[in-house]
Amino acid sequence: MILNSFKHYKQMNDTLKTIHNHVSIRQFTDQKISEEVLQQILEAACNGSTMGNMQLFSIVVTEDEAMKQKLAPFHFNQPMATKAPLILTFCADFNRFNRYCACRQADTEAYSNMQSYHWAVIDALIAAQNACVAAESLGLGLCWLGTITYNVDKFIETLRLPKHVIPVACITMGYPACQPEKTLKLPLEAMVHRETYHDYSPVDINRLYAEKETSEETRQILAENQLDNLAQVFTQRRYTKKDNETFAKVLTDALRRQGFLSDL
Amino acid sequence: MILNSFKHYKQMNDTLKTIHNHVSIRQFTDQKISEEVLQQILEAACNGSTMGNMQLFSIVVTEDEAMKQKLAPFHFNQPMATKAPLILTFCADFNRFNRYCACRQADTEAYSNMQSYHWAVIDALIAAQNACVAAESLGLGLCWLGTITYNVDKFIETLRLPKHVIPVACITMGYPACQPEKTLKLPLEAMVHRETYHDYSPVDINRLYAEKETSEETRQILAENQLDNLAQVFTQRRYTKKDNETFAKVLTDALRRQGFLSDL
Repeated sequence: MILNSFKHYKQMNDTLKTIHNHVSIRQFTDQKISEEVLQQILEAACNGSTMGNMQLFSIVVTEDEAMKQKLAPFHFNQPMATKAPLILTFCADFNRFNRYCACRQADTEAYSNMQSYHWAVIDALIAAQNACVAAESLGLGLCWLGTITYNVDKFIETLRLPKHVIPVACITMGYPACQPEKTLKLPLEAMVHRETYHDYSPVDINRLYAEKETSEETRQILAENQLDNLAQVFTQRRYTKKDNETFAKVLTDALRRQGFLSDL
Repeated sequence: MILNSFKHYKQMNDTLKTIHNHVSIRQFTDQKISEEVLQQILEAACNGSTMGNMQLFSIVVTEDEAMKQKLAPFHFNQPMATKAPLILTFCADFNRFNRYCACRQADTEAYSNMQSYHWAVIDALIAAQNACVAAESLGLGLCWLGTITYNVDKFIETLRLPKHVIPVACITMGYPACQPEKTLKLPLEAMVHRETYHDYSPVDINRLYAEKETSEETRQILAENQLDNLAQVFTQRRYTKKDNETFAKVLTDALRRQGFLSDL
């Protein structure tokens, strides 16, 4: 298989170029996003595939300064959360469909389980990524905020999400105030399996991570963290077992309260 | 807010047109997908945002006829699963990262929980939707298969997915042999909330579902199913409580076996 080409950039169509040019943007200019541009992003978000055409997602649009300030601590006060002109929070949403069922003498208890939850998560994330591609095609920059699932209970409360609604993705958007280099990713070979999954031997791991591990970016991270390798930066600093388990409990408690774990 | 415009199609850029033109395609011509086109789709898939740049997903490419036949029953023998030239299965994957940690004296037990599972699901679905947009920009048609989470245990076995890998999205792709009308969706207003979630009153529900309920498509579905309304078609025929709970158990058992529910 040909690996990591993107050599033929000039021959790519505009959509592929948009996707190829993606890079997370964490600093934005003061330029507001017009209602017309927002509208185009939301329409793109709502035009993806969706389970049985049920459209099991909702999008909460945050533009109000006071609301951004309220949400900021739950995003750990990251500047891209407070200084972005626009935040879109994508929620898995079975509430609207259940309310529809309630108005039509249909069973409202059919979708309180893990399977249905997955349908809604998938719908929400298709919408979120469509919104991202659309936004980037319109010259916006963006960054996903992992904090949305960490502090999911706080977002549920502040955004006033009812039962059967839970946020799964949060994206800050604005006009880029910087143009960072593309982050070094693993070669395509690392992610792609033909016909069946081929598990990774230590030799595979060494080969697949080699470019990343020897990059200048990694050298800087290791120096800052005074650790031997990138894996330890993740497990000892960025995402430790203790933190992950704390946040996992927040998430499962929220899933239970929002009615998605009736069978667990 | 301006609702459901897409009126300005001619003024849209090519990326927005690609997204706007999406419609599920369930019939494909015999034309194969070239390795070059596949490569472009996979590169696009692997170029999305990803949690901490960990790239917590894998893609299993199915092109082999014998493998399609093996998978067919788990896709309930839907023709779009057997007759598509290409099936892409997107998996939430913490196996590769854990193996990397194992090779680098880092904790391999940090990510066996619901929070980490969500990161990997999000990564997999960003990749999946990027692949879809890329494929459609290249003239391909596609359809998502919900069966992937229904029969997740069978796919894990057949695709030989190790612990910490679970499929979350499955997409059939090929050159369209038909050009169906766009499916009628809810108005944008139904999905979009400003600043906080505004729950739906029965009056809201009636307004938001009115166009869909009075459409010719719905009239046909109700006649075929001999039911009063679309909600009942879902709860009594397509996705019943009983079926959902059966498939939910399959999924939660698989999540547990694959090591993502260590805290539940």
